This record gives sequence, structure tokens and C-alpha cells, in this order.
Amino acid sequence: MTEDDLIGKLHAIVARAAPTALLVGIGDDAAVWQPSRSHRSVITTDALVEGVHFTRDAMSAADVGHRALASNLSDIAAMGAKPVLATIAFGVGPGADEAWILECYRGIAALAERAGCAIAGGDIVRAPAITIAITIVGEVRASNLKTRAGMLPGDTIAVTGPLGASRAGLAVAVEHPALASDPAAAEVLRAFRTPEPRLAEGRWLAASRNVRAMMDTSDGLSTDLARLARASACGAIIDTVPVSDATRTIATRAGANAEVWALDGGEDFELLVAVASRAFSHLAGRFHARFGRPLLRVGVASPELGIRRSDGTGVTSAGWDHLRA
Amino acid sequence: MTEDDLIGKLHAIVARAAPTALLVGIGDDAAVWQPSRSHRSVITTDALVEGVHFTRDAMSAADVGHRALASNLSDIAAMGAKPVLATIAFGVGPGADEAWILECYRGIAALAERAGCAIAGGDIVRAPAITIAITIVGEVRASNLKTRAGMLPGDTIAVTGPLGASRAGLAVAVEHPALASDPAAAEVLRAFRTPEPRLAEGRWLAASRNVRAMMDTSDGLSTDLARLARASACGAIIDTVPVSDATRTIATRAGANAEVWALDGGEDFELLVAVASRAFSHLAGRFHARFGRPLLRVGVASPELGIRRSDGTGVTSAGWDHLRA
Repeated sequence: MTEDDLIGKLHAIVARAAPTALLVGIGDDAAVWQPSRSHRSVITTDALVEGVHFTRDAMSAADVGHRALASNLSDIAAMGAKPVLATIAFGVGPGADEAWILECYRGIAALAERAGCAIAGGDIVRAPAITIAITIVGEVRASNLKTRAGMLPGDTIAVTGPLGASRAGLAVAVEHPALASDPAAAEVLRAFRTPEPRLAEGRWLAASRNVRAMMDTSDGLSTDLARLARASACGAIIDTVPVSDATRTIATRAGANAEVWALDGGEDFELLVAVASRAFSHLAGRFHARFGRPLLRVGVASPELGIRRSDGTGVTSAGWDHLRA
Repeated sequence: MTEDDLIGKLHAIVARAAPTALLVGIGDDAAVWQPSRSHRSVITTDALVEGVHFTRDAMSAADVGHRALASNLSDIAAMGAKPVLATIAFGVGPGADEAWILECYRGIAALAERAGCAIAGGDIVRAPAITIAITIVGEVRASNLKTRAGMLPGDTIAVTGPLGASRAGLAVAVEHPALASDPAAAEVLRAFRTPEPRLAEGRWLAASRNVRAMMDTSDGLSTDLARLARASACGAIIDTVPVSDATRTIATRAGANAEVWALDGGEDFELLVAVASRAFSHLAGRFHARFGRPLLRVGVASPELGIRRSDGTGVTSAGWDHLRA
């Protein structure tokens, strides 16, 4: 079974449970409901499991906490929302002594404070491995809400930053520790250990009517762009795969292909947007002025379903899938 | 470390992260915030772990799903709120094949539908054991919100149903399978496998100004009443421990003490309320007329801290603690 297959079957099972309360349900970065006339609330859940998403030797407790919250905040950012509060279901595995747990929560709390997100509570249970499931509630003005549906053929597809850096950081932290001395290592390790959710960028992009669809790149561009395209009932042609110099350097030294990392690596937590083409260069200019970084073109939406490269080759969704054999 | 100790330390760490958004934070059955002027939203998270909270041989997949949602809905009931939506972080352990997962979600969906609670989404990850972390958002009229704080000395303490039945069900399902043929077994197995969250009762009780504090009895009366008393800065004297005939029968046959099960067993998911004494008998009469079951007196709130029996003996909080050595 694959994750998307299973999610489809689960969707069919739970769809009958009071679906009318939801404006957006399973299948987007976050679900949406309406607590008052002018505002929408969004909610998203993400879990990190020791041995699956992290190991204690490759990452400090504080970094694990940071990442657990960051991946959730990234989903909130992808809806154009601002975070309000989070709850944490913490599974205490054998490797989590009190010092580790407190340090992990310090990592969560530091990022939460910067993001303006209250920690509202949670549950602490024994578990066979450290497990951190975080749920975040956010709020967004009704007119600003962005989902994965809405991309139109011809739209320019772009990301808020280069991709593959988190995968390069994994290479340094786990696979090729000798690369840690490379001057390029610090940047990719930071991307791997303490990724910054694009909250300000998400709210800024969401305020533009020319941004038609948005999601985050948590599972790799090849997988995530396919999901965006499917939700929008169109396809996409990738003409540029934005990769940073540091990622390229580490990939070369590790004997890997930086573009493959960018396409399939995942966990970059950049935002992926579809922008009305005539408005793209103006929007990208304003984005650069506002955030000091470029909005990077990836390609264009196409009427034909599926994801291809501009040279005509197909792109397989080879990003992270928890359930693929 | 104990669960309450650890929660206290974690509270100190996360308290600095934007506490103003929360009307009620860590330490109650659910956290509370204000999405609009007249309403309060509540949120709660609860996790179930295979081998810790359930085993696949003692419980069907659908029952595991039911229980996972029921324990969360019970926290929503304890705030006087109605559930709106739930998210599910599902850890796929080695024992969870597709059929098991789908059946588990059917158990969740069936209860969610009856409770009027939409399943809004979630996350599916690999894990070393089946892990189900559910978060529920609910809504409550501002004037109806009940917390653990508010009990006053002299208040009558009561529960919405007899206690210990879930612990008796565990005895039948796991410890003494031979007791399954006892005519009393069906009732306690039902309490163990498919507990009913007291949602209607919680909303009804919350609408009364004479109900001053409310929580659910998920960790056993000895632990939960101590928490209620501590949050209300008073103590309590237990004069009655309500136990059903079926629980008493199973306890006797298992060579156990039914009162100890009721005090320490936990997971009954009845509501524990503090009621202004002069109003109790009228409220209990209306409760009986409305729900066809009595509101059962447990004891009285006292100005002295701590929990005692009416014969003067002390009561130790011996309910479930995930982290106690």
C-alpha cells in the first residue's frame, strides 16, 4: 500500500462523519472550518517518530522539537494562515529521559514563541520509540485562504527557496559525517536540523489574488507538485529545479545528484505556489524586496495531466512515502 | 519522574510561548481559546499506543478506534463543549495491515458520526507500534464553559455513572478470560471496549450555573478527584464509591476489590462534577429524568487540601500514571 492510496480509502470511510462542518477536509495541507463569519480556522497534524524521522545521534533534542513544530507550522503557512495554538501528543520512548524531554520542549517552545503560537496542552504516554505528534490551529481571513486546488494551465509555478538542502544536510549528518568539515556543511545542516517554516511568506503570498494555489514542499517537489497538479485537475512542466550552491557542493562530494535530491528529498518546507503568469514578475520583484530572497521559478502549469520536464521526460513521484514497501 | 511532575516542568517551558491567546491552557481536560465574541473553542489531544493502552488480541481494530476517539470526546464533554472536528496522527506499526487500519478507522468514523464530529485530516507515519493520536476541536457557549477550577468547600461531588467497569472489563478481556462466560461480563466488556463519552450529559450539566467544576474520570477517581480538588484549591471527602453490580460480581470472581478498581482503575470516561449542595437533589432529579440514569453522589468538597474517605482514612492517587516507575 502507498500513503496516497491508503489516505484515499480512509477518506471514503470518514467522509460520512459530519462533513458539512468542514470547508476543506482531508487531502490539503490543513483542514478548514468556519468559527465566525469573517475568519477561517485551519488545523493540521504531523507526527515525528524516532528511527523513522530522526535518530537521537543525528539530531539534538532541541532540534527534534524544532523540526516537529516546524513541519506543522509549514502546513499552516501553506494555507496562508497564522498559527494560534498547538497541542503535543508526546510518546516517551526508552531513549527519552527527563533531560531529553525538557530539551525537546525547549526547542518546541523557542520556535513557537517566535511564531506567535501558544502551546495549549497535549498528552504524555509511554511508547516504544519517541513519538511527537503536534496539531496546530491557525486562523486566516476568508478571502486569503489558499488551497492546493486553483492552479490553472499557464500559471507560473514557483518556490520560496531552493530545494534539496535538507536532503544534503541528512547526507552530512548521517551518511557522510566526514563532509561536516566542508564549508558548505553548515548551511545544509541548518536546513536539515532547524528548517524555518515560511509563515511570513505564506501570509504575504496568500494576500495576493494572483497566487492561485499554495502548498508546502515537505515530501519532495516530484511528489508535492504532482499533488498540487492533481488537486487542481491539471499538470505541470518543470523547467528549473532550484538548488543552492551549498547543496550542489555537498551532492558532488557525496557522489549524488543535487537535482534528484531537490526533486525527491523532501522536508525543505519551502512553499510551492501557482501564480497567474502575467503577474509573476511583478510579484516576484515585490517578494524579493520584502524578504530579501527571490521567488524561484520552477515551471508552468499545463492542461495535460502529469508532471514532465521541459525536455519532455516524465517525472516520477519518488519523494517520501511512509507506506511504500 | 511522574506524569504530573513532568507536565509541571513542561508547562514552565512552554508558558512563555504566546500565553495570551489561551483562556485555559495546560492542566485542564482541554485548552480554550476565543475565535469569536460569543463562543469559545476547546482543543484536546489524546494518544493510544499498542502494548501500552491496548493489545490487538484483547480488542478488535474497530474497538481500538472507538476507544481512541472516545477518550478524546470525553475531554470535550468535560468542558461542556460539543465536538466539531478531529484530526488523527496514525502510526502504522508492524501489526497494522491495511485491513486492520481500515477497520480501525471504521470504528472511529462510526463514533464520530454519532457525535457529530467531522474527521478533518491527519498524518500517517510508520512507527514501531500502532499509535493513534487524536486531536479534537469543540465549541462551547462562553457562559457554559466548565473547567476543573471552581469547586467550593461544601459542594456535592458526583459522577455521571458507576466507576470501575472498564477495569473489570480489562480483567475479563485480558487477565481472567474464563470470566467471559459470566452473565456480568458483557456489561463490563462493553465499558472496556466501547466506552460512551458523556457528551450530551456534559453539555446539559455545563448549562447549569450550579455545576461549578467538571472533568472526566479517565485516570481513576483517586487521581482525578485529587486533580479537580487541586485545581479548585480545596480538598474532598469521599463518602460513596459508586460501583455497578456487574463490576462487583466480576471483582469478586477475580479475587479483586471493586472499590479499588473504581478508585484507581480509570478509563471509565464518566464525568466528575462539583455541584452547589443546595441545588444537588433538584439537579440530580432533572438529570435522572433527562438521561434515565442517576447522577451519583461521591462525596463533598472540603476546605482542607487532600482527598480522604469519610471514615478519616487518606486516599492515595493510585490511578494510571504513564511515567511512574
